[in-house]
Amino acid sequence: MEPDNENKKRIYLDYASTTPLDDETLKFMLPYFDGRFSNPSSMHSSGRDAMAVIVRSKKEIAEVIGMRSDEIIFTGSGTEADNLAILGVCRAYKNKGNHIIVSAIEHKAILEPAKQLEKEGFVVSVLPVDKEGKINVEECVKLITSQTILISVMYANNEIGTVEPIKELAERIASLKNNEGMPFLHTDACQATGYLPINVPELGADLMTLNSSKIYGPKGVGLLYKKHSIKIEPIISGGDQESSKRAGTENIALIAGFAHALKKAETHRKEEVARLQKLQSFFMLSIKTLLPFVKFNGPLPITISSESPLTRLPNNVHLSIPAIEGESMVLMLDNEGIEVATGSACSSLDLKPSHVLIAIGQDPEIIHGSIRFTLGRYTTKKELEKVLEVFPKIVKHLISLSSIKI
Amino acid sequence: MEPDNENKKRIYLDYASTTPLDDETLKFMLPYFDGRFSNPSSMHSSGRDAMAVIVRSKKEIAEVIGMRSDEIIFTGSGTEADNLAILGVCRAYKNKGNHIIVSAIEHKAILEPAKQLEKEGFVVSVLPVDKEGKINVEECVKLITSQTILISVMYANNEIGTVEPIKELAERIASLKNNEGMPFLHTDACQATGYLPINVPELGADLMTLNSSKIYGPKGVGLLYKKHSIKIEPIISGGDQESSKRAGTENIALIAGFAHALKKAETHRKEEVARLQKLQSFFMLSIKTLLPFVKFNGPLPITISSESPLTRLPNNVHLSIPAIEGESMVLMLDNEGIEVATGSACSSLDLKPSHVLIAIGQDPEIIHGSIRFTLGRYTTKKELEKVLEVFPKIVKHLISLSSIKI
Repeated sequence: MEPDNENKKRIYLDYASTTPLDDETLKFMLPYFDGRFSNPSSMHSSGRDAMAVIVRSKKEIAEVIGMRSDEIIFTGSGTEADNLAILGVCRAYKNKGNHIIVSAIEHKAILEPAKQLEKEGFVVSVLPVDKEGKINVEECVKLITSQTILISVMYANNEIGTVEPIKELAERIASLKNNEGMPFLHTDACQATGYLPINVPELGADLMTLNSSKIYGPKGVGLLYKKHSIKIEPIISGGDQESSKRAGTENIALIAGFAHALKKAETHRKEEVARLQKLQSFFMLSIKTLLPFVKFNGPLPITISSESPLTRLPNNVHLSIPAIEGESMVLMLDNEGIEVATGSACSSLDLKPSHVLIAIGQDPEIIHGSIRFTLGRYTTKKELEKVLEVFPKIVKHLISLSSIKI
Repeated sequence: MEPDNENKKRIYLDYASTTPLDDETLKFMLPYFDGRFSNPSSMHSSGRDAMAVIVRSKKEIAEVIGMRSDEIIFTGSGTEADNLAILGVCRAYKNKGNHIIVSAIEHKAILEPAKQLEKEGFVVSVLPVDKEGKINVEECVKLITSQTILISVMYANNEIGTVEPIKELAERIASLKNNEGMPFLHTDACQATGYLPINVPELGADLMTLNSSKIYGPKGVGLLYKKHSIKIEPIISGGDQESSKRAGTENIALIAGFAHALKKAETHRKEEVARLQKLQSFFMLSIKTLLPFVKFNGPLPITISSESPLTRLPNNVHLSIPAIEGESMVLMLDNEGIEVATGSACSSLDLKPSHVLIAIGQDPEIIHGSIRFTLGRYTTKKELEKVLEVFPKIVKHLISLSSIKI
């Protein structure tokens, strides 16, 4: 099997699952695979050069998020950064409290380590969300006790695109913090990056996860921003890298690529949001016209002219249809060269009902008929028009095969 | 600062720290960055293609190590694989025992998680080594109790090049295993790969760590081989990847590159060992002639004609010199365009005395005067001749500056 560029000819609408690597970013990375390969922990010149790449990349990222270089810990993925935030902070403060709060629609990279903490004696409160997937700040405040170490609420949801009120939550929590700064607020910004502002002083989070592979950067690198005063225990130990907070030889090519991709995503953010919102509105309105019985999940997009903050990711269109299976839609669209996701892409090979759709109270009978289109940098109106030709036919065909009448 | 190929003009003798990425391997990886970028967990065609790359890479690696594909867990580094072996296995069997044995000269990627286990209630026995860095199999056996879950002894040491008798250890332990197979034997083969046979049925280990970045493959990927019957708890959770043993979107480019590099290293292993042994003997004999007062660390290399197994890595030359500092030698050699390491490269920015040199009973007065040359695929006799011109002058100059007479 020889690699080819066949993907490019297909219509890829699964950008929330992962993004292609930007050509400029790849070009920028290449010399770090080859000529500049040394171990940044080495004392000799090329080792020091490698360390300089890490230092420079951190500085560039620190500028984007408005914080200090020494507050960034590079990891091997967004998942690892989420795990590190939950496990690392709670274990470091286990003598100060035993309670954490996570929203019901967090990624499993948060929910699974939270379960692990339960085994270690922690109490985990799950913050519910409304029918659009949004948390209620006051409900979160009510859950806080003197034992609460950490609150983790994602910035934007990967499945249904809901944007959470992180800034309001941070402002409300600020007055409730004890003299050590607890409860700390962590936000998983993996899906938000490139669409929402990630300036930390503006946002107010104490910890934030970013992921390179969702912003046209290389896979295999993520980071945790951590306010410098917050203690954290490593989950991977055995080296002095990343201030002993994450051991393992740093991959300078991926780190340099991540910084490059983040700067580019931030530079084009506002125009890209405006462009995608237009496509999103066009696509959602067209689907509603062609298939009036679909149920869109998550908040409705705001109008493009509005100055108010986004309540929904501009690249996410998520819908449920009664009587048919999401998997069938995905496979039939795939057959037509259109690539989309059902449920959460991170677990789409596992057919358990989505915990996010359960959390928003979606009717169990239509949860399985859910499909997610996520638009991205290379999505065009022409591509969406092609989908609008094909998708209604597939839906109608599947409904005609179903024994359930809608 | 623009990337360049300056490294290539320098004499790099720090291959144990990290290796350059092989040109063929890079070429093989490139399409997976670009055209074939999908998330292997996605259900659509390009997602399934990405999964096929992982399946194929695992199959290729399984063939090299002589085991099954489903016994391989990809990680983000050798360090992570070592951490996973120690933490993951011991936590999974904590109801069956509370004791582990690690050799005194393990990499910190083993020793640090072992310390973590002590905090979790485990007892850690440290197996001493002799003056050449070698463990004694019978001493290890004496440490085994009914509580022993895991024994971790590295295949070859990263600092002084000692090859450990893993096969003998595995054979001796076999008869002592209980009906669940405990104690399990883990070996860190990060430095051994490409030099020593890593066929698992032949070697007899139950778990084995491999690392791409030491075998001319990409950085940012390692793996843990784990016998299928052994249970393991993930250290990074929140996704179904790697049979739920290691969450996070798989980096197919790095995984494909790792498999490519491993096959190539294995194909050329025997001829490369013979080539490097000649260079190693030449280099060590020349140094001894020029600087008779140096003390070589680790076992002396066997003669090239011998059929007996290697007792020392063929690419490692490690020596100590009284009265001078390793750091000074490294920096002065660097000034001449020669890149080497002092102590362990993984902690060479930290000036604590090497735990390996302490473990072999090296005189504390000369530990700090230690230097490591590690040869590799691109090392030539001409390069070593250049070093032999420069190095004695540097040593004599540093000794002349020292207040200690030798």
